[in-house]
Amino acid sequence: MELTPADAVAVLRRTPATLQAMLEGLADSWLLANEGPDTFSPRDVIGHLIHGEETDWVPRMKIILEHGEAVPFTPLDRFAFRTASVGHSTSALLERFAALRRESLRAVGAMTLDGAALARTGTHPGLGRVTLGQLLAAWVVHDLGHVKQVARVMAGQYREAVGPWREYLTILDRP
Amino acid sequence: MELTPADAVAVLRRTPATLQAMLEGLADSWLLANEGPDTFSPRDVIGHLIHGEETDWVPRMKIILEHGEAVPFTPLDRFAFRTASVGHSTSALLERFAALRRESLRAVGAMTLDGAALARTGTHPGLGRVTLGQLLAAWVVHDLGHVKQVARVMAGQYREAVGPWREYLTILDRP
Repeated sequence: MELTPADAVAVLRRTPATLQAMLEGLADSWLLANEGPDTFSPRDVIGHLIHGEETDWVPRMKIILEHGEAVPFTPLDRFAFRTASVGHSTSALLERFAALRRESLRAVGAMTLDGAALARTGTHPGLGRVTLGQLLAAWVVHDLGHVKQVARVMAGQYREAVGPWREYLTILDRP
Repeated sequence: MELTPADAVAVLRRTPATLQAMLEGLADSWLLANEGPDTFSPRDVIGHLIHGEETDWVPRMKIILEHGEAVPFTPLDRFAFRTASVGHSTSALLERFAALRRESLRAVGAMTLDGAALARTGTHPGLGRVTLGQLLAAWVVHDLGHVKQVARVMAGQYREAVGPWREYLTILDRP
Protein backbone atom coordinates (compact mmCIF):
# COMPACT_ATOMS: atom_id res chain seq x y z
CA MET A 1 0.00 0.00 0.00
CA GLU A 2 1.35 3.40 -1.04
CA LEU A 3 1.75 5.75 1.93
CA THR A 4 -0.41 8.85 2.04
CA PRO A 5 -0.38 11.27 4.99
CA ALA A 6 -4.19 10.96 5.27
CA ASP A 7 -4.08 7.13 5.57
CA ALA A 8 -1.23 7.29 8.07
CA VAL A 9 -2.91 9.93 10.22
CA ALA A 10 -6.18 7.95 10.18
CA VAL A 11 -4.38 5.17 12.05
CA LEU A 12 -2.23 7.40 14.25
CA ARG A 13 -5.21 9.27 15.63
CA ARG A 14 -6.91 5.99 16.63
CA THR A 15 -4.13 4.61 18.84
CA PRO A 16 -4.95 6.50 22.07
CA ALA A 17 -8.60 5.36 22.00
CA THR A 18 -7.51 1.83 21.11
CA LEU A 19 -5.27 1.64 24.18
CA GLN A 20 -7.92 3.30 26.35
CA ALA A 21 -10.48 0.72 25.20
CA MET A 22 -8.05 -2.11 25.95
CA LEU A 23 -6.63 -0.87 29.24
CA GLU A 24 -8.62 1.87 30.99
CA GLY A 25 -9.78 0.65 34.39
CA LEU A 26 -8.21 -2.78 34.04
CA ALA A 27 -6.70 -4.43 37.14
CA ASP A 28 -2.95 -4.25 37.77
CA SER A 29 -2.74 -8.02 37.28
CA TRP A 30 -3.24 -7.24 33.58
CA LEU A 31 -1.61 -3.79 33.40
CA LEU A 32 1.67 -4.74 35.06
CA ALA A 33 2.11 -8.17 33.49
CA ASN A 34 5.17 -8.53 31.27
CA GLU A 35 7.19 -11.18 29.46
CA GLY A 36 10.27 -11.18 31.71
CA PRO A 37 13.18 -8.84 32.54
CA ASP A 38 13.52 -5.79 30.27
CA THR A 39 10.19 -6.43 28.55
CA PHE A 40 7.24 -4.06 28.49
CA SER A 41 4.01 -4.38 30.45
CA PRO A 42 0.88 -2.76 28.95
CA ARG A 43 1.49 0.15 31.34
CA ASP A 44 5.11 0.40 30.15
CA VAL A 45 3.90 0.61 26.55
CA ILE A 46 1.88 3.72 27.34
CA GLY A 47 4.93 5.35 28.96
CA HIS A 48 7.06 4.42 25.97
CA LEU A 49 4.54 5.89 23.52
CA ILE A 50 4.40 9.12 25.58
CA HIS A 51 8.18 9.38 25.36
CA GLY A 52 7.99 8.88 21.60
CA GLU A 53 5.54 11.75 21.22
CA GLU A 54 7.73 14.03 23.33
CA THR A 55 11.09 13.26 21.78
CA ASP A 56 10.82 11.24 18.64
CA TRP A 57 8.23 11.38 15.87
CA VAL A 58 7.34 15.02 15.30
CA PRO A 59 10.75 16.27 16.43
CA ARG A 60 12.35 14.01 13.80
CA MET A 61 9.94 15.20 11.12
CA LYS A 62 10.92 18.77 11.95
CA ILE A 63 14.62 17.95 11.79
CA ILE A 64 14.15 16.54 8.27
CA LEU A 65 12.11 19.52 7.10
CA GLU A 66 14.47 22.09 8.64
CA HIS A 67 17.89 20.48 8.32
CA GLY A 68 17.62 17.54 5.93
CA GLU A 69 20.49 15.09 6.43
CA ALA A 70 22.73 17.65 8.14
CA VAL A 71 21.39 17.08 11.67
CA PRO A 72 21.08 13.41 12.69
CA PHE A 73 18.12 12.43 14.89
CA THR A 74 18.63 12.05 18.63
CA PRO A 75 18.68 8.31 19.43
CA LEU A 76 15.50 7.13 21.20
CA ASP A 77 15.96 5.84 24.75
CA ARG A 78 13.56 2.89 24.92
CA PHE A 79 13.50 2.85 28.72
CA ALA A 80 13.57 6.59 29.50
CA PHE A 81 9.87 6.52 30.30
CA ARG A 82 10.39 4.47 33.46
CA THR A 83 11.22 7.43 35.67
CA ALA A 84 8.67 9.71 33.97
CA SER A 85 5.78 7.30 34.64
CA VAL A 86 6.42 6.98 38.41
CA GLY A 87 3.58 8.39 40.53
CA HIS A 88 1.10 8.64 37.65
CA SER A 89 -1.94 6.40 37.41
CA THR A 90 -2.29 4.33 34.24
CA SER A 91 -5.44 6.28 33.53
CA ALA A 92 -3.50 9.57 33.72
CA LEU A 93 -0.81 8.14 31.41
CA LEU A 94 -3.47 7.15 28.86
CA GLU A 95 -4.89 10.66 29.05
CA ARG A 96 -1.45 12.20 28.64
CA PHE A 97 -0.68 10.05 25.62
CA ALA A 98 -4.00 11.06 24.03
CA ALA A 99 -3.27 14.77 24.59
CA LEU A 100 0.27 14.51 23.22
CA ARG A 101 -0.90 12.56 20.18
CA ARG A 102 -3.51 15.25 19.43
CA GLU A 103 -0.72 17.88 19.62
CA SER A 104 1.53 15.78 17.39
CA LEU A 105 -1.17 15.42 14.75
CA ARG A 106 -1.91 19.14 14.90
CA ALA A 107 1.76 19.71 14.13
CA VAL A 108 1.64 17.19 11.28
CA GLY A 109 -1.50 18.88 9.94
CA ALA A 110 0.37 22.17 9.79
CA MET A 111 3.10 20.69 7.58
CA THR A 112 2.73 20.61 3.80
CA LEU A 113 3.31 16.92 3.15
CA ASP A 114 3.30 16.70 -0.63
CA GLY A 115 5.37 14.22 -2.61
CA ALA A 116 8.45 16.41 -2.46
CA ALA A 117 8.24 16.74 1.33
CA LEU A 118 7.73 13.00 1.80
CA ALA A 119 10.83 12.37 -0.31
CA ARG A 120 13.02 14.68 1.78
CA THR A 121 15.80 12.84 3.56
CA GLY A 122 17.26 12.89 7.04
CA THR A 123 19.91 10.96 8.96
CA HIS A 124 18.89 8.22 11.39
CA PRO A 125 21.66 7.49 13.94
CA GLY A 126 21.46 3.73 13.34
CA LEU A 127 19.81 3.33 9.93
CA GLY A 128 21.44 6.09 7.91
CA ARG A 129 19.50 7.92 5.21
CA VAL A 130 15.73 7.78 5.60
CA THR A 131 12.89 9.76 4.05
CA LEU A 132 10.13 11.71 5.76
CA GLY A 133 7.60 9.31 4.21
CA GLN A 134 9.45 6.33 5.68
CA LEU A 135 9.43 8.06 9.08
CA LEU A 136 5.66 8.58 8.87
CA ALA A 137 5.10 4.93 7.87
CA ALA A 138 7.41 3.78 10.69
CA TRP A 139 5.38 5.81 13.20
CA VAL A 140 2.18 3.99 12.14
CA VAL A 141 3.84 0.57 12.24
CA HIS A 142 5.46 1.35 15.61
CA ASP A 143 2.00 2.11 17.07
CA LEU A 144 0.55 -1.11 15.68
CA GLY A 145 3.53 -3.09 16.93
CA HIS A 146 2.82 -1.92 20.46
CA VAL A 147 -0.91 -2.67 20.16
CA LYS A 148 0.11 -6.16 19.10
CA GLN A 149 2.52 -6.34 22.04
CA VAL A 150 -0.15 -5.36 24.57
CA ALA A 151 -2.48 -8.06 23.21
CA ARG A 152 0.31 -10.65 23.30
CA VAL A 153 1.48 -9.79 26.83
CA MET A 154 -2.07 -9.98 28.15
CA ALA A 155 -2.80 -13.24 26.33
CA GLY A 156 0.37 -14.73 27.78
CA GLN A 157 -1.09 -14.44 31.27
CA TYR A 158 -3.48 -17.26 30.36
CA ARG A 159 -0.91 -19.50 28.68
CA GLU A 160 -1.47 -22.24 31.26
CA ALA A 161 -5.13 -21.46 31.95
CA VAL A 162 -6.24 -22.38 28.41
CA GLY A 163 -5.03 -25.98 28.86
CA PRO A 164 -5.23 -27.97 25.59
CA TRP A 165 -6.40 -24.90 23.64
CA ARG A 166 -2.80 -23.69 23.59
CA GLU A 167 -2.30 -25.73 20.42
CA TYR A 168 -4.85 -23.58 18.53
CA LEU A 169 -4.07 -20.18 20.07
CA THR A 170 -0.91 -19.23 18.26
CA ILE A 171 -0.61 -15.85 20.01
CA LEU A 172 0.61 -17.80 23.07
CA ASP A 173 3.77 -19.10 21.46
CA ARG A 174 4.74 -16.56 18.81
CA PRO A 175 6.80 -13.42 19.30
CA MET B 1 -2.04 -15.79 36.26
CA GLU B 2 -4.90 -17.79 37.81
CA LEU B 3 -8.13 -17.41 35.86
CA THR B 4 -11.05 -15.69 37.57
CA PRO B 5 -14.34 -15.00 35.79
CA ALA B 6 -14.10 -11.31 36.77
CA ASP B 7 -10.63 -10.90 35.21
CA ALA B 8 -11.69 -12.73 32.06
CA VAL B 9 -14.90 -10.74 31.65
CA ALA B 10 -12.99 -7.47 32.18
CA VAL B 11 -11.05 -8.22 28.99
CA LEU B 12 -13.95 -9.74 27.04
CA ARG B 13 -16.14 -6.70 27.53
CA ARG B 14 -13.41 -4.43 26.14
CA THR B 15 -12.95 -6.13 22.78
CA PRO B 16 -15.83 -4.49 20.87
CA ALA B 17 -14.68 -0.99 21.84
CA THR B 18 -11.08 -1.90 21.05
CA LEU B 19 -12.01 -2.94 17.51
CA GLN B 20 -14.29 0.07 17.11
CA ALA B 21 -11.43 2.36 18.15
CA MET B 22 -9.07 0.66 15.70
CA LEU B 23 -11.41 0.29 12.73
CA GLU B 24 -14.57 2.43 12.83
CA GLY B 25 -14.62 4.78 9.86
CA LEU B 26 -11.29 3.58 8.46
CA ALA B 27 -10.87 3.38 4.66
CA ASP B 28 -11.31 0.06 2.85
CA SER B 29 -7.62 0.13 1.94
CA TRP B 30 -7.04 -0.73 5.63
CA LEU B 31 -10.22 -2.70 6.36
CA LEU B 32 -9.97 -5.11 3.43
CA ALA B 33 -6.21 -5.67 3.51
CA ASN B 34 -5.15 -9.23 4.23
CA GLU B 35 -2.06 -11.44 4.24
CA GLY B 36 -2.88 -13.57 1.18
CA PRO B 37 -5.40 -16.28 0.21
CA ASP B 38 -7.47 -17.68 3.10
CA THR B 39 -6.22 -15.07 5.56
CA PHE B 40 -8.39 -12.59 7.45
CA SER B 41 -8.72 -8.88 6.76
CA PRO B 42 -9.65 -6.63 9.70
CA ARG B 43 -13.24 -6.72 8.38
CA ASP B 44 -13.10 -10.53 8.23
CA VAL B 45 -12.01 -10.63 11.87
CA ILE B 46 -15.18 -8.82 12.93
CA GLY B 47 -17.32 -11.31 10.98
CA HIS B 48 -15.43 -14.21 12.53
CA LEU B 49 -15.91 -12.82 16.05
CA ILE B 50 -19.65 -12.36 15.38
CA HIS B 51 -19.87 -16.00 14.33
CA GLY B 52 -18.07 -17.03 17.53
CA GLU B 53 -20.61 -15.18 19.68
CA GLU B 54 -23.49 -16.78 17.82
CA THR B 55 -22.30 -20.37 17.72
CA ASP B 56 -19.29 -20.93 19.90
CA TRP B 57 -18.41 -19.44 23.28
CA VAL B 58 -21.61 -19.21 25.31
CA PRO B 59 -23.23 -22.17 23.53
CA ARG B 60 -20.21 -24.29 24.53
CA MET B 61 -20.35 -23.05 28.12
CA LYS B 62 -24.01 -24.09 28.23
CA ILE B 63 -23.21 -27.52 26.78
CA ILE B 64 -20.67 -28.11 29.55
CA LEU B 65 -23.01 -26.92 32.29
CA GLU B 66 -25.99 -28.89 30.97
CA HIS B 67 -24.42 -32.02 29.51
CA GLY B 68 -20.82 -32.26 30.72
CA GLU B 69 -18.75 -34.49 28.47
CA ALA B 70 -21.77 -36.31 27.01
CA VAL B 71 -22.45 -33.80 24.21
CA PRO B 72 -19.37 -32.75 22.21
CA PHE B 73 -19.17 -29.14 21.00
CA THR B 74 -20.15 -28.33 17.43
CA PRO B 75 -16.91 -27.69 15.46
CA LEU B 76 -16.40 -23.99 14.65
CA ASP B 77 -16.46 -23.09 10.95
CA ARG B 78 -13.72 -20.47 10.67
CA PHE B 79 -15.01 -19.12 7.34
CA ALA B 80 -18.78 -19.37 7.87
CA PHE B 81 -18.97 -15.62 8.46
CA ARG B 82 -18.13 -14.81 4.83
CA THR B 83 -21.70 -15.19 3.58
CA ALA B 84 -23.21 -13.65 6.72
CA SER B 85 -21.15 -10.44 6.34
CA VAL B 86 -22.19 -9.73 2.74
CA GLY B 87 -24.21 -6.53 2.36
CA HIS B 88 -23.40 -5.19 5.83
CA SER B 89 -21.16 -2.17 6.36
CA THR B 90 -18.12 -2.67 8.55
CA SER B 91 -19.65 -0.18 10.95
CA ALA B 92 -22.81 -2.30 11.19
CA LEU B 93 -20.71 -5.42 11.79
CA LEU B 94 -18.84 -3.68 14.63
CA GLU B 95 -22.18 -2.67 16.15
CA ARG B 96 -23.53 -6.20 15.80
CA PHE B 97 -20.46 -7.69 17.45
CA ALA B 98 -20.80 -5.24 20.35
CA ALA B 99 -24.48 -6.13 20.84
CA LEU B 100 -23.81 -9.88 20.70
CA ARG B 101 -20.91 -9.59 23.12
CA ARG B 102 -23.11 -7.70 25.59
CA GLU B 103 -25.67 -10.52 25.34
CA SER B 104 -22.97 -13.15 25.78
CA LEU B 105 -21.66 -11.46 28.90
CA ARG B 106 -25.17 -11.13 30.29
CA ALA B 107 -25.50 -14.89 29.86
CA VAL B 108 -22.13 -15.44 31.55
CA GLY B 109 -23.19 -13.13 34.40
CA ALA B 110 -26.27 -15.30 34.96
CA MET B 111 -24.12 -18.43 35.43
CA THR B 112 -22.72 -19.33 38.84
CA LEU B 113 -19.05 -19.69 37.99
CA ASP B 114 -17.52 -20.94 41.22
CA GLY B 115 -14.52 -23.27 41.40
CA ALA B 116 -16.68 -26.35 40.90
CA ALA B 117 -18.33 -24.91 37.78
CA LEU B 118 -14.96 -23.86 36.29
CA ALA B 119 -13.68 -27.39 36.84
CA ARG B 120 -16.63 -29.01 34.99
CA THR B 121 -15.56 -30.81 31.85
CA GLY B 122 -16.85 -31.00 28.31
CA THR B 123 -15.76 -32.63 25.07
CA HIS B 124 -14.04 -30.56 22.39
CA PRO B 125 -14.28 -32.23 18.95
CA GLY B 126 -10.55 -31.80 18.29
CA LEU B 127 -8.96 -31.37 21.71
CA GLY B 128 -10.86 -33.89 23.81
CA ARG B 129 -11.58 -33.16 27.47
CA VAL B 130 -11.54 -29.48 28.42
CA THR B 131 -12.81 -27.57 31.44
CA LEU B 132 -15.19 -24.64 31.56
CA GLY B 133 -12.36 -22.54 33.02
CA GLN B 134 -10.12 -23.43 30.07
CA LEU B 135 -12.93 -22.45 27.68
CA LEU B 136 -13.28 -19.07 29.37
CA ALA B 137 -9.51 -18.47 29.22
CA ALA B 138 -9.45 -19.56 25.56
CA TRP B 139 -12.21 -17.05 24.77
CA VAL B 140 -10.09 -14.22 26.21
CA VAL B 141 -6.94 -15.35 24.39
CA HIS B 142 -8.88 -15.83 21.13
CA ASP B 143 -10.06 -12.18 21.33
CA LEU B 144 -6.53 -10.93 21.98
CA GLY B 145 -5.16 -13.09 19.17
CA HIS B 146 -7.49 -11.37 16.73
CA VAL B 147 -6.63 -7.90 18.04
CA LYS B 148 -3.00 -8.82 17.46
CA GLN B 149 -3.90 -10.08 13.98
CA VAL B 150 -5.68 -6.84 13.04
CA ALA B 151 -2.64 -4.82 14.14
CA ARG B 152 -0.28 -7.10 12.22
CA VAL B 153 -2.34 -7.13 9.00
CA MET B 154 -2.58 -3.34 9.03
CA ALA B 155 1.12 -2.90 9.80
CA GLY B 156 1.96 -5.22 6.92
CA GLN B 157 0.48 -2.72 4.46
CA TYR B 158 3.48 -0.46 5.17
CA ARG B 159 6.12 -3.20 4.98
CA GLU B 160 7.78 -1.49 2.00
CA ALA B 161 6.86 2.07 2.94
CA VAL B 162 8.99 2.03 6.12
CA GLY B 163 12.19 1.47 4.10
CA PRO B 164 15.19 0.77 6.34
CA TRP B 165 13.03 0.86 9.52
CA ARG B 166 11.87 -2.66 8.69
CA GLU B 167 14.88 -3.94 10.61
CA TYR B 168 13.58 -2.44 13.87
CA LEU B 169 9.85 -3.02 13.40
CA THR B 170 9.54 -6.70 14.20
CA ILE B 171 5.75 -6.77 13.68
CA LEU B 172 6.49 -6.66 9.92
CA ASP B 173 8.22 -10.02 9.79
CA ARG B 174 6.77 -12.09 12.60
CA PRO B 175 3.60 -14.23 12.49
